Amino acid sequence: MATCTFCRIIAGESPASFVYEDDLVCAFLDIQPVQPGHLLIVPRKHATSLCQLSTEKGERMMAVAQRFVRVLREGAAVPCEGVNLFLADGNVAGQEVPHVHLHVIPRTSTDGFGLRFGAAYGTRPDRTELDRIADAVRERVQQLGDRLGASAEGTPHD
Amino acid sequence: MATCTFCRIIAGESPASFVYEDDLVCAFLDIQPVQPGHLLIVPRKHATSLCQLSTEKGERMMAVAQRFVRVLREGAAVPCEGVNLFLADGNVAGQEVPHVHLHVIPRTSTDGFGLRFGAAYGTRPDRTELDRIADAVRERVQQLGDRLGASAEGTPHD
Repeated sequence: MATCTFCRIIAGESPASFVYEDDLVCAFLDIQPVQPGHLLIVPRKHATSLCQLSTEKGERMMAVAQRFVRVLREGAAVPCEGVNLFLADGNVAGQEVPHVHLHVIPRTSTDGFGLRFGAAYGTRPDRTELDRIADAVRERVQQLGDRLGASAEGTPHD
Repeated sequence: MATCTFCRIIAGESPASFVYEDDLVCAFLDIQPVQPGHLLIVPRKHATSLCQLSTEKGERMMAVAQRFVRVLREGAAVPCEGVNLFLADGNVAGQEVPHVHLHVIPRTSTDGFGLRFGAAYGTRPDRTELDRIADAVRERVQQLGDRLGASAEGTPHD
């Protein structure tokens, strides 16, 4: 018996209401939905963080999410006037199940769902400060770029 | 002069603090960040909704997002203990700029950011109800599957 909630579902050891399956990912309904049709796109093989997931699997998750956005926004299957995608990577970010999952959330104007912000939100850093942060982030992306691209996580076939 | 805020940035007509650019997408810092390093991944060519975006571009957005999650979670460039990805598709979903953008939000335990839920949230539909909804969604995905895969929006992955 798998210890991970989503691994149990994928192994057929726990029930779920599936809406999609392919070789890399599957999707099933959230059991505590924001709105009917709220679903989770999940890689079949266990990975806690996007950091541990191949680029190919991340890309597939998004391709499937796009397909669901198109289907849901028709409004035919469930009420839907817009869609949110949400992913929490890490406990601090609100990740409750330690298996990568992308929420696809159909939205209506009356559902009351949204973001909440801390007391400091709303402050706009000046351009000098933004540029300083951007330099630090961009430098690190460039330093890691080649290694990430060439790693086992980054290749199309891992 | 482009009328879209992000198209003006991409055209170099408005300032932005860029952290990444390639042939399909670019990324720059949000001017009203949840936390330092909060960035937006944006397709170069204007599209309002993920429904109008090719699968290839959506996949690229996610591949770049994964790279940023890896870089940010090192905690070297900016404080970061976790990351949220967030995308709003449609006004009702909270989309403020009508050009597709994926938020990559570095998180700390004290930033106060998170989700808010409507009064009805917390209700758990029974399995019969979940299965009924899943059937409706899955049926529509299957009906549209071939058409979506064969459209100009599709890619070799479809």
